Amino acid sequence: MFWEVSALGAGGVSIAVALYLYRWVMSQTNESKEMAEFSSAIQSGAAAYLRRLFQALGILALVVAAAILITLDWRTALSYLAGSTCSGAAAYAGMYVATRANAKVAWAARSGLKKAFPVGFYAGAVMGLSVVGLALVGMTVLYVVFRDPEVVLGFSFGASSLALLAKAGGGIYTKTADIGADLVGKVEFNLAEDDPRNPAVIADNVGDNVGDIAGMGADIFDSYVASVVAVMLLGAALYGEKYVVFPLLLGAAGILSSLIGMLFVRTGEGNDPGRALNTGTMATTIVFAAMTVGAAHAVGMDRPWGLIVPTIAGLLAGIVIGFTSDYFTDIDNKSVQDTANSARTGTAILILQGFSYGLVSIVPSILGISAAMVVAWVTAQHFGIAGTYGVSMAAVGMLSITGMIISADAYGPIVDNAKGCAEAASESEETIRVCDRLDAAGNTAKAITKGFAIGAAALTVLALFAAYAETVGIDVIDLRNPGVVVGVFLGAMMPPFFSALTILSVGRNAFKMVEEIRRQFNEVPGVIEGKVKPDSDRCVDIATRGALRELVLPGMLAFLTPVGVGLVLGKNALGGFLAGSIVTGIIFALFMANSGGLWDNAKKFIEDGAHGGPGSEAHKAAVVGDTVGDPFKDTAGPSLNTLITVMCLAASLFGPLIAKVSLFGF
Amino acid sequence: MFWEVSALGAGGVSIAVALYLYRWVMSQTNESKEMAEFSSAIQSGAAAYLRRLFQALGILALVVAAAILITLDWRTALSYLAGSTCSGAAAYAGMYVATRANAKVAWAARSGLKKAFPVGFYAGAVMGLSVVGLALVGMTVLYVVFRDPEVVLGFSFGASSLALLAKAGGGIYTKTADIGADLVGKVEFNLAEDDPRNPAVIADNVGDNVGDIAGMGADIFDSYVASVVAVMLLGAALYGEKYVVFPLLLGAAGILSSLIGMLFVRTGEGNDPGRALNTGTMATTIVFAAMTVGAAHAVGMDRPWGLIVPTIAGLLAGIVIGFTSDYFTDIDNKSVQDTANSARTGTAILILQGFSYGLVSIVPSILGISAAMVVAWVTAQHFGIAGTYGVSMAAVGMLSITGMIISADAYGPIVDNAKGCAEAASESEETIRVCDRLDAAGNTAKAITKGFAIGAAALTVLALFAAYAETVGIDVIDLRNPGVVVGVFLGAMMPPFFSALTILSVGRNAFKMVEEIRRQFNEVPGVIEGKVKPDSDRCVDIATRGALRELVLPGMLAFLTPVGVGLVLGKNALGGFLAGSIVTGIIFALFMANSGGLWDNAKKFIEDGAHGGPGSEAHKAAVVGDTVGDPFKDTAGPSLNTLITVMCLAASLFGPLIAKVSLFGF
Repeated sequence: MFWEVSALGAGGVSIAVALYLYRWVMSQTNESKEMAEFSSAIQSGAAAYLRRLFQALGILALVVAAAILITLDWRTALSYLAGSTCSGAAAYAGMYVATRANAKVAWAARSGLKKAFPVGFYAGAVMGLSVVGLALVGMTVLYVVFRDPEVVLGFSFGASSLALLAKAGGGIYTKTADIGADLVGKVEFNLAEDDPRNPAVIADNVGDNVGDIAGMGADIFDSYVASVVAVMLLGAALYGEKYVVFPLLLGAAGILSSLIGMLFVRTGEGNDPGRALNTGTMATTIVFAAMTVGAAHAVGMDRPWGLIVPTIAGLLAGIVIGFTSDYFTDIDNKSVQDTANSARTGTAILILQGFSYGLVSIVPSILGISAAMVVAWVTAQHFGIAGTYGVSMAAVGMLSITGMIISADAYGPIVDNAKGCAEAASESEETIRVCDRLDAAGNTAKAITKGFAIGAAALTVLALFAAYAETVGIDVIDLRNPGVVVGVFLGAMMPPFFSALTILSVGRNAFKMVEEIRRQFNEVPGVIEGKVKPDSDRCVDIATRGALRELVLPGMLAFLTPVGVGLVLGKNALGGFLAGSIVTGIIFALFMANSGGLWDNAKKFIEDGAHGGPGSEAHKAAVVGDTVGDPFKDTAGPSLNTLITVMCLAASLFGPLIAKVSLFGF
Repeated sequence: MFWEVSALGAGGVSIAVALYLYRWVMSQTNESKEMAEFSSAIQSGAAAYLRRLFQALGILALVVAAAILITLDWRTALSYLAGSTCSGAAAYAGMYVATRANAKVAWAARSGLKKAFPVGFYAGAVMGLSVVGLALVGMTVLYVVFRDPEVVLGFSFGASSLALLAKAGGGIYTKTADIGADLVGKVEFNLAEDDPRNPAVIADNVGDNVGDIAGMGADIFDSYVASVVAVMLLGAALYGEKYVVFPLLLGAAGILSSLIGMLFVRTGEGNDPGRALNTGTMATTIVFAAMTVGAAHAVGMDRPWGLIVPTIAGLLAGIVIGFTSDYFTDIDNKSVQDTANSARTGTAILILQGFSYGLVSIVPSILGISAAMVVAWVTAQHFGIAGTYGVSMAAVGMLSITGMIISADAYGPIVDNAKGCAEAASESEETIRVCDRLDAAGNTAKAITKGFAIGAAALTVLALFAAYAETVGIDVIDLRNPGVVVGVFLGAMMPPFFSALTILSVGRNAFKMVEEIRRQFNEVPGVIEGKVKPDSDRCVDIATRGALRELVLPGMLAFLTPVGVGLVLGKNALGGFLAGSIVTGIIFALFMANSGGLWDNAKKFIEDGAHGGPGSEAHKAAVVGDTVGDPFKDTAGPSLNTLITVMCLAASLFGPLIAKVSLFGF
């Protein structure tokens, strides 16, 4: 019981610190009316979207909970609702403080970097600490009450369901607004980014928050919980009690490490805020590694090194994949510069280059994930622990420092919006320069988190895959079985199909947005001259409605396909289905994130003056590339992590049922 | 021995008819000097490319044969060389007659469709009949001499090696020339397609021949042989002699059916030549189905219906996948028209739409392939035949009508070039209209063949995968084994990586081509005015050298990676590797072929007058889409079939060796 109390204690501390930081951030002032207005428009847009999203998700959650209640039991149904609620609460808290902190950061930037940076970082930390705190407390309470990892699986499924829809919906929202604003504002009317005359600017800024804060927070909440649950399930199947609760203890260690790591995040006036964030991540990593060694010995695990080494291997793999993930999208590297250079021959070759380098970029990450898996497996076995358990410990190790990682990540959109506030209020050049420096650090943190999130999701789903096999009692998933092969084909088809559906959604919605913006500029007198305020609410409304409506089909696919495959083709085919979806899910997630990032930076490279600079033909080509990349990197790509997690969880949850009633038994 | 004699006899008849048709086509006249000149430039360009390609491939073949000689035995090495030679000879024969028939078709078109159509079709039939004749004779002779399917496997590997490099090299060649010619000629200097002032026009027309005739011929030769070999290997492992030679007998039946089917390919002056081609395909299918039923009973197979039903299931699946494959790329359907419509908002959304519909288009084909596999497996088992043997019979069934399919396919580029000849010679509008009608039929045949080729390759590699497992003696390829999972990841990475390398090659080469064309227009006086003949040879040379140089890296990857994975991670991991590569190989092949075709037709739809027609902003966007799609559909996509076949064959050939010496035994 000591372990559970530790986990509850650490989770409680995390939530308490989050509340303290929340009050501190809210106590910071902003005395600019323009900034307050800009910020308040974002707040109300974001709140409107979240309200509608949560209404829709609430109904969905009740329907799914009812389905679970009928087919499984009330405890899992309750746990499912708790998971959705905790994940939603963490996302809401992060978004609430983020949309209020932006103007405060911008105001503090008038007094310099040293004053502004903590406002941004601690606002991000509210999100980071809420996520890990709520996740750990939720899982621990459910386990203490029910003593059954299968029930905690319901919590994870609830968190994942919410994450999938929050992420895909947020992705559709943000790119509808972004592409709409750019196509009409920038291209047709030559307005700058964030020009207040553009009616879609508020929707665009809201989009940054709903996509990158609420979406990313829900996504990592989901992976974090899923990795712990996978270990709990495997621990229960293979060993006993101790191996079930051990990941909760590591969760506690991860929270304490993150809190200690945050103490290292400080920066002076002349320093690089990016370095401060990296120092915090490094400190967290080292403290966590030490704590893992200590904890495994202190609580008297039988084969401590069989747990420690895979955990630390996963932790290091996460860091390495994170830091190397931005190699291909780094503005100083060959791939970006080659792509920018090809813009001189026009748009087509630029698209082809970015597409190809995105595909090439999957190679190092796949090698990294494979290496992490093999190392975790082999070292665990070497010390006498089952390989599958080792792989799932690697996932837990990777995700244990989530508190710090999300804090640094959420900082990004906050300072990005702060820059928008400063520009909307026509602040001094010096203030805007400070905001720019804050923003640059945020972009690096964002790139690292993206790689980290995919790496973590990959190991987590591999652990879930093992947990699925244990849950339904399959010893072998044989690729020589035609049912398994068909399962692999069907599973592999899902991520590209899902990506296509979400991108088509963005295209359809952006089309409507373009027509609305054109209508306001052309038909409402005074808008384009800046005399009449544009009707931002209509644009917010188009993005909101569109995102929710477009979620229906891909959402249903994600939930119903694995269950359908299981019911028709049986549990072995479903195992193949999961494996197929994991493989193409990771490949498409990596390729889309990196191609998108690469086109974005190729455009920035040209905007910095290369190949004729802004306004040149090369720049026009690069703008097209960036627009193509937008839904790749911010809609389709990031949703795939969550898609494969949801499908694995649905399979594990309904697996035992499926095993009994399937139509064909391949 | 009666069976082998039948196979040899049918193969001999096929070659004899090909020779007869060759002489008939060559006896057709062309009295236009301009056409003869245009045709002769294509002939010498194509010959120059093939000569250099075969020189390079000859060296490669000797190196690989030496490696086989050292690690395996002299019989397999000899068989490997025979396979390369037969495949190369068929490709060369097809190309030789095609590059000479174009002007003859154009001349005959002056006398009308009824006269011109047979010249084009019989020229294509030379290729179709050479492919099946040489393949069947080659395999049968080797089997009669050595009585060992493992030796025939060497023949298949030789054919595949040649096909991979012919296809990828041809793909790089043709798109280097095409994109170069378009970017400078059409976009910068406003010249028409095939304008003789453009120095890259000859290279572009040569490209059509090397890509679509030599490349496609080698590709289907390769699948045809591989499907038969897979059955032979499985037959030897599971049953006896009869089951080894049965596919050779079906090959003989396929040739006779194709010859009979060709008798139905006739058209009158007012008829649609596309219908004539489809009638021929249908007749071939029906005759072959009847012959299969007869043959299985006549030769006294024990469980005839266990062979007949899977064979016919495969045959029908091939036809269905072929005919439906052009649904997504059909100019009259929603996906093309939606994409064309999105061109009104600019290039970016058009790219996103075509990309997304390409991804959606994989769904029906994957379902079709899965259904064919399950039906073949289940029906075979129902009649008492092993499921794996059933799946491989389905592949043989699909490919047995290859003779007819390739004949119709090779017809396409011939009449396309004929149109080029007619335009170069400024023929009458009536003649050009006849050429247009011939060409339209060719495009449909091409679309059908593309789907057919991917479906056939999918079933073939699934059969090869089963053959691999039998060859190295694996009972189970377990997805719960971490080595297998890592293998799947590495294998799945290969097709996207290979695609990226070939597309980057096209980008690099096209860049050089653009500079050369610009140089000639800007620096050589008289070229742009049409007074001085452009230096086509330099453009041909850039395309040729570039294609060969760029083949080195992807070629090495294809051969060395499976062997490397096997040697390091063991035979189970190599099984996973093959499965992973098959899945993403088919997905990327389908997506790239269909996205490319869709952009192409969206452009044609706009050129036919929609959304402002030629010269509008929408048209410019559609031209970019078409250029992006070019290397998708003609370089990367079509090479993937062959890539996965080569890797499966390499694994089967070196598998027994790998099983003994691998470093880790996962």
